[in-house]
Amino acid sequence: MSELRFNELRGEQVVYAIDRQDRTFLPAREHCPLDPTRLGEPPTEIPFAAFQIAVFDNRFPAFQAPGGAAEVVVYTDRHDGSFATLSPQRAQALMWVWRHRYQELGARPDVEYVMIFENRGVEVGVTLHHPHGQIYGYPFVPPVATLELAADERVGGCAPCALLARELGDAQRILIERDGVVAYVPHAARWAYEAHVVMREHRASLLDCEPDELRELSQVLQALVRGYDELFERPFPYVMVVHQASTCEPADSPARRGHVHVEFYPPLRTAEKLKFLAGSEQGAGTFISDTLPEESAVALREAIARAA
Amino acid sequence: MSELRFNELRGEQVVYAIDRQDRTFLPAREHCPLDPTRLGEPPTEIPFAAFQIAVFDNRFPAFQAPGGAAEVVVYTDRHDGSFATLSPQRAQALMWVWRHRYQELGARPDVEYVMIFENRGVEVGVTLHHPHGQIYGYPFVPPVATLELAADERVGGCAPCALLARELGDAQRILIERDGVVAYVPHAARWAYEAHVVMREHRASLLDCEPDELRELSQVLQALVRGYDELFERPFPYVMVVHQASTCEPADSPARRGHVHVEFYPPLRTAEKLKFLAGSEQGAGTFISDTLPEESAVALREAIARAA
Repeated sequence: MSELRFNELRGEQVVYAIDRQDRTFLPAREHCPLDPTRLGEPPTEIPFAAFQIAVFDNRFPAFQAPGGAAEVVVYTDRHDGSFATLSPQRAQALMWVWRHRYQELGARPDVEYVMIFENRGVEVGVTLHHPHGQIYGYPFVPPVATLELAADERVGGCAPCALLARELGDAQRILIERDGVVAYVPHAARWAYEAHVVMREHRASLLDCEPDELRELSQVLQALVRGYDELFERPFPYVMVVHQASTCEPADSPARRGHVHVEFYPPLRTAEKLKFLAGSEQGAGTFISDTLPEESAVALREAIARAA
Repeated sequence: MSELRFNELRGEQVVYAIDRQDRTFLPAREHCPLDPTRLGEPPTEIPFAAFQIAVFDNRFPAFQAPGGAAEVVVYTDRHDGSFATLSPQRAQALMWVWRHRYQELGARPDVEYVMIFENRGVEVGVTLHHPHGQIYGYPFVPPVATLELAADERVGGCAPCALLARELGDAQRILIERDGVVAYVPHAARWAYEAHVVMREHRASLLDCEPDELRELSQVLQALVRGYDELFERPFPYVMVVHQASTCEPADSPARRGHVHVEFYPPLRTAEKLKFLAGSEQGAGTFISDTLPEESAVALREAIARAA
């Protein structure tokens, strides 16, 4: 079981999940626990010879019932590839899986916030290369979600809606613009190639999205990630996080606030150099960037076009 | 010049210092810009053949007047070694340099918060190996300082004082206890081997410390860092940050709040494995640790004793 402790100076919960110290760490390719189980071989974590998308409880969980949830979402039974190389149909199906897990986990009384995410690349600490993401069901509303609610207060409405309007007005940092989904490098990006993928209409969660919007979301996410891989002609590490409404209130409550947007935090600032979170980021909470968002947007837009 | 932009969703300033992209990156040993200038060779950043401690403006600044400050503090003219290997006299003198820079920079109208820090090791992005630290003079009070003020409000007094009392009462996580200075692994550490070095008496800034306290501070910091290096028998990477009162109010103002404590954020969770800030830390703002602070404290206490 994990333990929560309140960090007084930072005003936040810290989670201790001590069993995770022994988690599987970059196993040899033939021992991938996310591969399908092959006939005559020891079972992997997925007891099927083939599958489309698999979701199961993380064996080394940060949270577990009745104190939250930690799930693994395996995107494909093929070991190689990435989110970018999934077929469009599979990527679209993944949006429905995300939506379903948000609904199921969000309905649990011990889950107040559902966070769907993917860590990609050893640069962000990935321990398994098989294409997969994760879902955490937090037993509390975490700090970043609280900051987003504070942003809503400051702008006097939905902050992601207001920011999207500003970005569309400014236009300089827009990467992809579709009927229902827009991708851009934010005006005050913390990471050199940070990008946000935002629903154009106000949608508190994936449950509020139309099927066409989910399809477009999968298309824009894949186009962006293919652009990332094209940018420096190498697999591009990132942390991808789906932000949406907390699940403290029922899905049909008018009190529910939030707006579906997917944020990418890539650690590369050049083809070879990483951005480290050091003195200023850790000690002051202030990001220092050496890249202007407008310049990143130009480079990323070109890379997305080349990869299309 | 650097540019500040307000990140609405996070409620924080982001700093763009685009000249930093070209900063000196792990130069060959014989081209170290922090070495003293040798007779007949091109000048380094320090135009002297020998020195004790050197402080100068960062050539690749995150901030510069009249919008803040960024200084480099070179601990010694010897290229090899580290904060841990400085003579006790030099380490003690460094405390007085810190105090002086806090006073000078804090007196400037464009500096609201002075942060003295050291990034150590390539694991936290160090670009020069010569023993040195840095000082940023922020033109605003940064988020972490604001969180510490909020902690004061919550505990109804000085939060570092209250936390120190709790740690001394609990005793399990104390690393070093001296008359004027105590080191411990905090109850809710975010990093496996996080440690805080705290003034026992309430001291808002280094300016409020007695000479004996500054001497003890240097001794405890060195003992801790030697323990870190002993722990895994390797140079131990860390981010070290001196937290003290903001400089918005004059040093003699009763409204000034803060308490001198030095926080260490080391990225190692085992001798070889790093803690990465990935999905949960970046997307939710919640740290997941696989190490209990009590266990770290035992290991660190033993390492400090071995290194003494």
